[in-house]
Amino acid sequence: MKEFVLGIDIGGTSAKFGLVNRDGDVFNEGSVPTVDTTSVDEVLKPIYEKITTILGQNPEYKLIGAGVGAPNSNYYKGTIEFAPNLDWGEMVDFKSEFKKYFDFPMVLTNDANAAAIGEKVFGGAKDMNDFVIFTLGTGLGSGIVVNGNVVYGYSGFAGELGHVTVNPKGRYCACGRRGCLETYVSATGIKRTVYKMLADYTDPSVLREVSYDDLNAKMITDAAIDNDFIAIKAFEYTGKILGIKLADTVVHTSPQAIFLFGGLVNAGKYLFEPTMKHMEKNMFKAFRGTVQLLPSALMDKNAAVLGAAALAWDEADKHSRLINLI
Amino acid sequence: MKEFVLGIDIGGTSAKFGLVNRDGDVFNEGSVPTVDTTSVDEVLKPIYEKITTILGQNPEYKLIGAGVGAPNSNYYKGTIEFAPNLDWGEMVDFKSEFKKYFDFPMVLTNDANAAAIGEKVFGGAKDMNDFVIFTLGTGLGSGIVVNGNVVYGYSGFAGELGHVTVNPKGRYCACGRRGCLETYVSATGIKRTVYKMLADYTDPSVLREVSYDDLNAKMITDAAIDNDFIAIKAFEYTGKILGIKLADTVVHTSPQAIFLFGGLVNAGKYLFEPTMKHMEKNMFKAFRGTVQLLPSALMDKNAAVLGAAALAWDEADKHSRLINLI
Repeated sequence: MKEFVLGIDIGGTSAKFGLVNRDGDVFNEGSVPTVDTTSVDEVLKPIYEKITTILGQNPEYKLIGAGVGAPNSNYYKGTIEFAPNLDWGEMVDFKSEFKKYFDFPMVLTNDANAAAIGEKVFGGAKDMNDFVIFTLGTGLGSGIVVNGNVVYGYSGFAGELGHVTVNPKGRYCACGRRGCLETYVSATGIKRTVYKMLADYTDPSVLREVSYDDLNAKMITDAAIDNDFIAIKAFEYTGKILGIKLADTVVHTSPQAIFLFGGLVNAGKYLFEPTMKHMEKNMFKAFRGTVQLLPSALMDKNAAVLGAAALAWDEADKHSRLINLI
Repeated sequence: MKEFVLGIDIGGTSAKFGLVNRDGDVFNEGSVPTVDTTSVDEVLKPIYEKITTILGQNPEYKLIGAGVGAPNSNYYKGTIEFAPNLDWGEMVDFKSEFKKYFDFPMVLTNDANAAAIGEKVFGGAKDMNDFVIFTLGTGLGSGIVVNGNVVYGYSGFAGELGHVTVNPKGRYCACGRRGCLETYVSATGIKRTVYKMLADYTDPSVLREVSYDDLNAKMITDAAIDNDFIAIKAFEYTGKILGIKLADTVVHTSPQAIFLFGGLVNAGKYLFEPTMKHMEKNMFKAFRGTVQLLPSALMDKNAAVLGAAALAWDEADKHSRLINLI
């Protein structure tokens, strides 16, 4: 038998899935649309049918569990709650719906927590028990690992570091507050910062030719690599704000490393150098020089499906450690 | 047999100790001076002698462990490192020194972590797995509990929330940085705030009669309770800053409750109302209305010795849970 887990990453456009072995190799990848669906059943049923076909064609496959990354999901309850990009109802009992089709254990959490476990099981945190991952996309997601486990907290929603406050009178955030970290540090955040820099400075920049609606993080990254003054300033500002807030995170859980994931990470030193500089500058002395700042090791892989699958492997590993203990 | 653990709280003036049963009753309290001692041995030896006498007089006593709260101590290594108020050397191998005298298990951590475990074993957090405690004294200490365990992190020094940054250009801190939370929220912090308020406002205040050196937190608390405008403003400012930073802590670990401990807590509503108001105002919506803000339930007890003893009981409880599991 070949043992696999099913990894599913649910987004507003599609649900991607794959079978993942203990080494992190992904097989039989596929996806089903989520856009225009009005119930979770419309997504789980086609996945079930595809998996059934795959298992029929590969009798040596054995599925031992599933991990699912989904927005606004609650690890404890197995629910997806008030997800703005999924039209499945306010409170989706994903766990029960999943059980209608599959008879193996399932773990559900949000995509940033899945990324954290992905880093631990398959990525750069294999030998780490205490670390944090920041996923820089449209917003800023995060997963905090303490003592080898993701921190879910009392509510099940811990690790929302996109919403620490940089400045109570700062930029307006989609969450209704002002000055949240993700309004500065994310693909959208750096775009806002470029516009601030274009206003503040008179230097020429290729970014002056692009409208706000057309501008994206890749253009800013490319411009920085081409030595564009405004783009470099935008990364410096982003890194400064991120660095200051990372120093706050460090005094909370004292991680061994902080991983950054997402397109902005491709800017390399333009992002990492100012972030590291300001993290160290603002760090309480007991932690100075102790925290690594690293790009995710899963950047070029199918990180979403791997992260989801890692959840299931992590649960299986914990279970077998407990068995060994007994 | 009556089972006890030995709780020891080490401070710059004295080391207090007591025998504590599983119900949190403290027996045979005592203390030995730490001031003017130049080695840990000068403190451990007299404690050993006193404990030996007590056990000789009470043959039904059985000591099953010890918990020790000490400044700058490392839970993993059992060391006290660079403690400014203890002249025992830069790196004290407390664990080895302890073993020379006592043959039962010992747990060492800093006083704020001990306070956290004290709250869990004997105080208001008996049924909580996720909470945070802030100890407001000369500085601000904190202990973070996640999933029933204190967060020690990679370094062993996690939970230094006195040194999150309120404002990078803010008040000078004894740690060498600027704008640390403890420069605003602590007995010393509110004293500094009173002086700011005395400068900002023209209102009369009994606090105008007191020099900076003579002013203490109790006077400010008493003045607030007497409806002194400046004292009330100082508590409002303290609560505002604490509330904003508590909202940041909540998005990290999503605690069920945040406990406050220390003399400032006696100000009651003058501290709690502005803190709660600004915590909620600055809270990410997923957590709004979910976090209790409570005074420590150990305020009127021998909290330092109880907290230290709780460490030992907590370890014993964990051990017996593991045994039950097997």
